[in-house]
Amino acid sequence: MNLRSGRLKGKMTADAVSFTSSLEFDKRIFNADIKCNIAHTTMLKEQGIIPSEDADKIVEALQALEVEGINALEWDMSVEDIHMALENYVTNRIGEVAGFMHTGKSRNDQVATDLRLVLKEEIEIIEEDILKFLDTLIEMASIHTETIMVGYTHLQHAQPTTFAHHLLAYANEVKRDYERLNDAKKRVDLCPLGSAAMTGTGFNIDRERTAELLGFGGVMENSMDGVSSRDFMAETVFALAMMASNLSKISEELIVWSSYEFRLVEISDEYSSTSSIMPQKKNPDVAEISRGKTAVLYGELMTIMSILKALPHSYNRDLQEITPHLWNAVDIGRSMLNITCSMLGSIEFNSERGLELALANFSTATELADLMVREKKLPFRIAHQIVGRTVTKAIDNHIKPDEIDAKFLDEVAIEINGEKLGLDQKTVEKALNPVEIIKARDVLGGPSPTAVKKSISSLKNFIELQRNH
Amino acid sequence: MNLRSGRLKGKMTADAVSFTSSLEFDKRIFNADIKCNIAHTTMLKEQGIIPSEDADKIVEALQALEVEGINALEWDMSVEDIHMALENYVTNRIGEVAGFMHTGKSRNDQVATDLRLVLKEEIEIIEEDILKFLDTLIEMASIHTETIMVGYTHLQHAQPTTFAHHLLAYANEVKRDYERLNDAKKRVDLCPLGSAAMTGTGFNIDRERTAELLGFGGVMENSMDGVSSRDFMAETVFALAMMASNLSKISEELIVWSSYEFRLVEISDEYSSTSSIMPQKKNPDVAEISRGKTAVLYGELMTIMSILKALPHSYNRDLQEITPHLWNAVDIGRSMLNITCSMLGSIEFNSERGLELALANFSTATELADLMVREKKLPFRIAHQIVGRTVTKAIDNHIKPDEIDAKFLDEVAIEINGEKLGLDQKTVEKALNPVEIIKARDVLGGPSPTAVKKSISSLKNFIELQRNH
Amino acid sequence: MNLRSGRLKGKMTADAVSFTSSLEFDKRIFNADIKCNIAHTTMLKEQGIIPSEDADKIVEALQALEVEGINALEWDMSVEDIHMALENYVTNRIGEVAGFMHTGKSRNDQVATDLRLVLKEEIEIIEEDILKFLDTLIEMASIHTETIMVGYTHLQHAQPTTFAHHLLAYANEVKRDYERLNDAKKRVDLCPLGSAAMTGTGFNIDRERTAELLGFGGVMENSMDGVSSRDFMAETVFALAMMASNLSKISEELIVWSSYEFRLVEISDEYSSTSSIMPQKKNPDVAEISRGKTAVLYGELMTIMSILKALPHSYNRDLQEITPHLWNAVDIGRSMLNITCSMLGSIEFNSERGLELALANFSTATELADLMVREKKLPFRIAHQIVGRTVTKAIDNHIKPDEIDAKFLDEVAIEINGEKLGLDQKTVEKALNPVEIIKARDVLGGPSPTAVKKSISSLKNFIELQRNH
Amino acid sequence: MNLRSGRLKGKMTADAVSFTSSLEFDKRIFNADIKCNIAHTTMLKEQGIIPSEDADKIVEALQALEVEGINALEWDMSVEDIHMALENYVTNRIGEVAGFMHTGKSRNDQVATDLRLVLKEEIEIIEEDILKFLDTLIEMASIHTETIMVGYTHLQHAQPTTFAHHLLAYANEVKRDYERLNDAKKRVDLCPLGSAAMTGTGFNIDRERTAELLGFGGVMENSMDGVSSRDFMAETVFALAMMASNLSKISEELIVWSSYEFRLVEISDEYSSTSSIMPQKKNPDVAEISRGKTAVLYGELMTIMSILKALPHSYNRDLQEITPHLWNAVDIGRSMLNITCSMLGSIEFNSERGLELALANFSTATELADLMVREKKLPFRIAHQIVGRTVTKAIDNHIKPDEIDAKFLDEVAIEINGEKLGLDQKTVEKALNPVEIIKARDVLGGPSPTAVKKSISSLKNFIELQRNH
Repeated sequence: MNLRSGRLKGKMTADAVSFTSSLEFDKRIFNADIKCNIAHTTMLKEQGIIPSEDADKIVEALQALEVEGINALEWDMSVEDIHMALENYVTNRIGEVAGFMHTGKSRNDQVATDLRLVLKEEIEIIEEDILKFLDTLIEMASIHTETIMVGYTHLQHAQPTTFAHHLLAYANEVKRDYERLNDAKKRVDLCPLGSAAMTGTGFNIDRERTAELLGFGGVMENSMDGVSSRDFMAETVFALAMMASNLSKISEELIVWSSYEFRLVEISDEYSSTSSIMPQKKNPDVAEISRGKTAVLYGELMTIMSILKALPHSYNRDLQEITPHLWNAVDIGRSMLNITCSMLGSIEFNSERGLELALANFSTATELADLMVREKKLPFRIAHQIVGRTVTKAIDNHIKPDEIDAKFLDEVAIEINGEKLGLDQKTVEKALNPVEIIKARDVLGGPSPTAVKKSISSLKNFIELQRNH
Repeated sequence: MNLRSGRLKGKMTADAVSFTSSLEFDKRIFNADIKCNIAHTTMLKEQGIIPSEDADKIVEALQALEVEGINALEWDMSVEDIHMALENYVTNRIGEVAGFMHTGKSRNDQVATDLRLVLKEEIEIIEEDILKFLDTLIEMASIHTETIMVGYTHLQHAQPTTFAHHLLAYANEVKRDYERLNDAKKRVDLCPLGSAAMTGTGFNIDRERTAELLGFGGVMENSMDGVSSRDFMAETVFALAMMASNLSKISEELIVWSSYEFRLVEISDEYSSTSSIMPQKKNPDVAEISRGKTAVLYGELMTIMSILKALPHSYNRDLQEITPHLWNAVDIGRSMLNITCSMLGSIEFNSERGLELALANFSTATELADLMVREKKLPFRIAHQIVGRTVTKAIDNHIKPDEIDAKFLDEVAIEINGEKLGLDQKTVEKALNPVEIIKARDVLGGPSPTAVKKSISSLKNFIELQRNH
Repeated sequence: MNLRSGRLKGKMTADAVSFTSSLEFDKRIFNADIKCNIAHTTMLKEQGIIPSEDADKIVEALQALEVEGINALEWDMSVEDIHMALENYVTNRIGEVAGFMHTGKSRNDQVATDLRLVLKEEIEIIEEDILKFLDTLIEMASIHTETIMVGYTHLQHAQPTTFAHHLLAYANEVKRDYERLNDAKKRVDLCPLGSAAMTGTGFNIDRERTAELLGFGGVMENSMDGVSSRDFMAETVFALAMMASNLSKISEELIVWSSYEFRLVEISDEYSSTSSIMPQKKNPDVAEISRGKTAVLYGELMTIMSILKALPHSYNRDLQEITPHLWNAVDIGRSMLNITCSMLGSIEFNSERGLELALANFSTATELADLMVREKKLPFRIAHQIVGRTVTKAIDNHIKPDEIDAKFLDEVAIEINGEKLGLDQKTVEKALNPVEIIKARDVLGGPSPTAVKKSISSLKNFIELQRNH
Repeated sequence: MNLRSGRLKGKMTADAVSFTSSLEFDKRIFNADIKCNIAHTTMLKEQGIIPSEDADKIVEALQALEVEGINALEWDMSVEDIHMALENYVTNRIGEVAGFMHTGKSRNDQVATDLRLVLKEEIEIIEEDILKFLDTLIEMASIHTETIMVGYTHLQHAQPTTFAHHLLAYANEVKRDYERLNDAKKRVDLCPLGSAAMTGTGFNIDRERTAELLGFGGVMENSMDGVSSRDFMAETVFALAMMASNLSKISEELIVWSSYEFRLVEISDEYSSTSSIMPQKKNPDVAEISRGKTAVLYGELMTIMSILKALPHSYNRDLQEITPHLWNAVDIGRSMLNITCSMLGSIEFNSERGLELALANFSTATELADLMVREKKLPFRIAHQIVGRTVTKAIDNHIKPDEIDAKFLDEVAIEINGEKLGLDQKTVEKALNPVEIIKARDVLGGPSPTAVKKSISSLKNFIELQRNH
């Protein structure tokens, strides 16, 4: 049956059909659409709105279709979409009583319901993937609590830290991505079914019952809002784009760190490729593609936001154009997450190089200044100036960081502050030793092995809590 | 004092200073920066890290500055930022012991803390404004529960509804904007102070105590994450952009509805302007500007996301560039919200025209089809076809919607289905009467006055809950 | 043969292969890649760099492949991309001398060359489509030079115009889209071949000869720039996004104008659809989808720009991620253009309604003010005030625009300016007649039939010039 | 005088005034607006449309205002915008005949004209700045034609090149930015004046004359297009965003290259800053801010595109919201350009390190493979495999690149190809010497000093051509 026959005379041109078709991404809601129809029909029957035996026939036909799968549909693009295709299937099977299943609903609320059902599932899968990523990060961090490296600000050596501490920064970022998706899910998990075209229906349907049958957490109450709002999609895509942004930092670091100059990590061959002309190359292609795909999620977000701007209520066909971008964002987000997880899990961290760099370029200077505050009760700013001058002087005179001694410091201190520091040589040495520095950075969230272990344990609690939820 | 004196020789060029200056938007964190320093100094004193009397002097100086206000600062752009300006003030007042206040923290964690403190406040102000907007919407809806209008899909007449029902669609959208901001706030409300440059500190600071003194809900644990993450900004700006997107629907509808052709609303002169050349014009300028500003929020979101992409850890100066875009988003979002509230509150809805349109163009057709299902147990699809043909035939024969009668329907039914419908003339009339239709649409979230009142009452509960929170 | 075998030990994981694969969109450059290899091999032979007979064998094999088509390739995703697939084909056919074809080039310059070749063709196709669209607009405008309608500013009635004049606004916008694509093409039409991996080659190749063989307008000179620049893609996508933006105005107007309230146009059934629940609906779905797809082009632009940001030289794999978004933009841009052309061509403009609206709401007021300036030498501002008050007064007293007469104007003039206007009644009537007003608006680019015909003629010249180019 | 007095009764609320005010960015068109009024008035006089002596008075008053400057305006925000303020000034000076200057134009065409006038000037300034940047790049390149460095793909060592060659990649990119701005300027440089509100005017104005008086290259013909099109802004902002994107690559490279690990460049202290806590730091803040500001231009582009989407004709107030984003893009684009120029000009390139890296990691491998093709007529693919294996073997056995000799190659060749290569030891050494390799890469656009000098000379020609234009 063709909906158009009643009101419109001409057929759409082939170009217009293909231009407006949602067929490709309708496939993704095939199962959800069956569920949605079953739940709705069941409720109609329970409420006595449609004949009980007809309801049963409809449900049976729908269940049969579920078993047969999507290929059982005779999908004619001229019937426009999956809802029609599905209804035609049921009609072919049980005759015109199939038409009852459409009582008190419309494609507007039905497609919104389908999309929410599928998206909720997708979010839950990604949530599980994030927890697995956290597992990987925790496992790696546990191994690297004493693996020294230099921490960077402005891509310049800042202070010594450990690879474990750095991995936990990743973990905390991704944990917030989890929380954002979880928050978004609250607003996905609402059932618009029964909003019909936009004003609900005169039939005495029970919207809360349908929502319950479909496993929703609640109802999208206002029926106009129910069919015209797509903020749940925008919000999810934002959460995914934000996750991608966080993942892109990891890719960037793997790319920079695996350069010849940094040599901090070796990405496994499985995530690298070589060159057709430069046979010596080993390129971090997977990390680069992942970095690039971040931008794809940004683009999808912008597309969706731009579609939504200034659309009047209620349903407009523009909304259909959002859907493929939602699914693309979901698929890309998920694949970025999982490939980053396995690629990161595959790397070899070069501990020797980590330590070498931590010693090479005055990353211990902050500790030296702190030492003057602690031991000599110097205001931090004076200490900062003394150390600043010390570094400049050392560079000018080709003195290496670990060659700085108490005497050298005294000379600079006199220049700056008019008097010697009088620091003990052993204390100075300790202050310049990355291992000692890190051990001392024992505050909450710091890099000391003890602090890191505490952080790991609190992350493990978080994961367990989510899994048992 | 100039930080640069220790390490760098040349001064920045004037161009470079102005290019990198954060002065303009640093003003916004002036008070927060004082609070932050007081809390940190207090904690340092409690932990015995700095001399008690010096801590007291510092706090006193900071409190004095709070009273004197930002103009008390001698702000030299060459000292780079507000943190330095503030420290210089304290130094001028109490001498070099001022330097102690910087013990165990850095500008990296301090600026992150300041921004979070201010943003949290801003979010709370916007939350209150949203609740006020909900008040307005509820008040308007209460007046308009029986104000008939036609509901649109595809900007075509769809079904009769009421202006109250439409207003509640707005309300539910904005309510979700509230929830999103509230969720974002959870991740804003975390204290990074004590992360220092990125690896915390060797001083025995108590990060949870500082967080408590500043009224934060928790701690940003990992210190590297603490200084380098700006997802809390991106998330807030997304929530604001989404809100703007929802508000832009309202603007769009006011613009379309106040056209000569629709004449559904009259925007108050206070929110209109005229033309320099066309003296008869009354233009919905405020709504147009608001619609346009939606795009500004989208741009700010894109700017922020694009800055964040592929930035390595930890602090990079690029992050500074996010801040003015955050504040701009906050300011524009808030002004859009409030002006939409007052502009919407000022309109006059043309009830007569609302009813006229509801009667004009077959918006009652769905009900007619529903009627056939209900009364004659026709499958919806058959009913749909009969009504579709009825409409086409009526248009072709210049028959108005309210001239359709039982006989006319029977004729069409025979054409389509081979038999009469046999509907009662009274029933047909009732089905074609918008007032009756709306009264019947009594399901949860529907437009019937009863259903609308229930929705209003549940919204009121929501508002009260938030206010008492 | 597998490139990896030399340098890398492990194989990529299946996930990594699929994550990084360019296979899907590589198909689009299949023919270009053959051409590119033929041209390069020919040049190598001409320069005596590779043995003449081997060159001939390679070219023959490539020509055979061109005939056989893409399915002749044994495409193993593990060989990574089309360049390898193609080389493997040639190797299978003629043995290891196939390897010569890769002398003095790399995949980096080759893919850049292929993409430019294909994109240039695509742009030229779209250019032709734009010219056809201009044909349609001109044809429609020629019919509608005397079809009155009201012109809008702020969606309010502004001044009377004709549908032809409005159509020519479309035409001028789209003409600039043409020019932008044409300008972009200049920077697409440059040959990077011979840049090799990034530093050219030590072989004595002739880059200008290869460019000539491939029909390029010039050479991308600097070899590092040649392989790493994708601004030609960004620029093309911007030009397409701008075109989409212009087309979206047309869609918007068709949607608004085909509303019941405006009733200015009737979109053909071929570009409309109906509702599953509201049988009376005729919805402008094609226009809505087209409006929505505008946002897709915006998203693609943002994706590309965001990928390009801060990428170091020279080739990075992120660049690969741009390509599918380029093609998507090209395809969507083109389909929007053509569907807008045919949809617009299918509409029926309601001339009666056009005139009715032009008369209904004081759109003639500007002319009235102009009249006072012309006839009574009143400064425009005074005239503006008189007319403004006239309109307010007319609305307040329910006087219709065409009921305003000389006497009424005099009364208002006295109020405002202290003296009568003394306009002749006939002159007033003429000033209030849209047909007369439009006839008088005869300046360059104005709506008078004469002016419109001049514009049409100049557009025709433009089109002819382009076609003969 | 207040425009509103005629038609509207209430005043705008203070909030609405500030929400819709364009005052801040109207200042930028102050001079242009005077010019525009002078040209228009002059034409009106020439055409005999307004009294000659009144025209002269108006022009005199406008010239007086030009001398007095913007502060001479009594700017009351309630008069809405600069056009009104300016007209009020003239009225105060010469009385009500001032009103004549508004004959046959509207604020709609006037603001469009002003914006185009100013933007054209701004573009020309940026064009000059680009040429200066090219001067700097050429000057630097001339010094560095023999400064060896390694070229990167995927941030991995690819092939040896020179710093000059790399600088010329920058130059070619920026040259295209110049061309794009130049192309955009063609569409900026069109005069919409005389379009009036949207349908031109009934006065016999001479639009081409006004365009000529204002120095425009042509006329925006269709009057509706003239007032409603802002594609000239979007296009300019795109060209600036693209330029920013190209500049961001330079910033990125300066940041990476000035890391301790790369040590390829030392940015001057004038473009660096230090840390408040880590006294040893020297941070590339200017480059980071510039990288960040790239995203601001992306955001502005997205804002503008998003505002333009689906706006019906003709003028809508949303268009006003574009303007501040245009100016912001112009200002940021220009400052990024100039600061990048001076920052880049200030760096010291570490030639020793450049050579060290070129020797360190097999970047000469391509040449080795090429050698086998050239000398031994081996197909490139076989040569590629031999070199790939050679590199892997060398790494495994800790053999440095310059320790590879003919014998070692023969061993690998036997493994791969079953027979010795028989290359001469001297030839091998030459192939592994970066200086020799670069000298040999003498094709158009390659890095050999000769090729680079040719490129420099052709760039100089380009610059001269532009300057003499």
